[in-house]
Amino acid sequence: MMTQQAERTAVDVVSAYHRAWTSGDVDAAMHLVADDVVCQVPGEETAGKDGWRAYLQGFVPMLTGVSDLTSLSDDDQVALLYSPHTAVTSTAYAAEHFRVRDGLIASIVLVFDRLSYAPPAAEKAGES
Amino acid sequence: MMTQQAERTAVDVVSAYHRAWTSGDVDAAMHLVADDVVCQVPGEETAGKDGWRAYLQGFVPMLTGVSDLTSLSDDDQVALLYSPHTAVTSTAYAAEHFRVRDGLIASIVLVFDRLSYAPPAAEKAGES
Repeated sequence: MMTQQAERTAVDVVSAYHRAWTSGDVDAAMHLVADDVVCQVPGEETAGKDGWRAYLQGFVPMLTGVSDLTSLSDDDQVALLYSPHTAVTSTAYAAEHFRVRDGLIASIVLVFDRLSYAPPAAEKAGES
Repeated sequence: MMTQQAERTAVDVVSAYHRAWTSGDVDAAMHLVADDVVCQVPGEETAGKDGWRAYLQGFVPMLTGVSDLTSLSDDDQVALLYSPHTAVTSTAYAAEHFRVRDGLIASIVLVFDRLSYAPPAAEKAGES
């Protein structure tokens, strides 16, 4: 299993990860994430696989679809640009940057605009 | 001038553009942007070079520095991940995706978290 993972390219790993969680299968996605993954999202930093699993599990119930715009890569790095669809928006972009080490995702930087995903009332009231 | 620009790679163009505006020289940056550029930023879409110039000019006075994390590219596409420094934050990431055509930037998608750049009081009150 570890050998198979190590033979996958960074793009393979990230593509499989992205397909898994955006189709609702957080457990399958987490098989591609290192135990000591370091993740940064707007307003917080989560350390470790359990923290990231909880973060994804919090978002996935709101996800109704995804539009993938592009994927760029270089050796162990991959960047994705996509629009997660929710009840609130399907046009706001998210950007995600990954570093892959030994076939597993070692770091994630997720960039998105929290206001774009807040309920319309919250954008005015500032309660997310 | 156009010939010289057309010989530059997408990475050359975007790197020069990024260096220019992040050092405060919006005019130099705009020389690398197509007249009909299409730009999307959180919460709005700006069409055309004048709209984008105005947008950058609105942000640049707040910029105190920049940390560049990475640049990925593929043919006519470039993605940048960086942290613009302002009085409020120097750790929030911005991601920017470009398409370059004939040596000029034809489209920009800028992704960042508006709340991370709002004054601390505004993050609570929701006024950006």
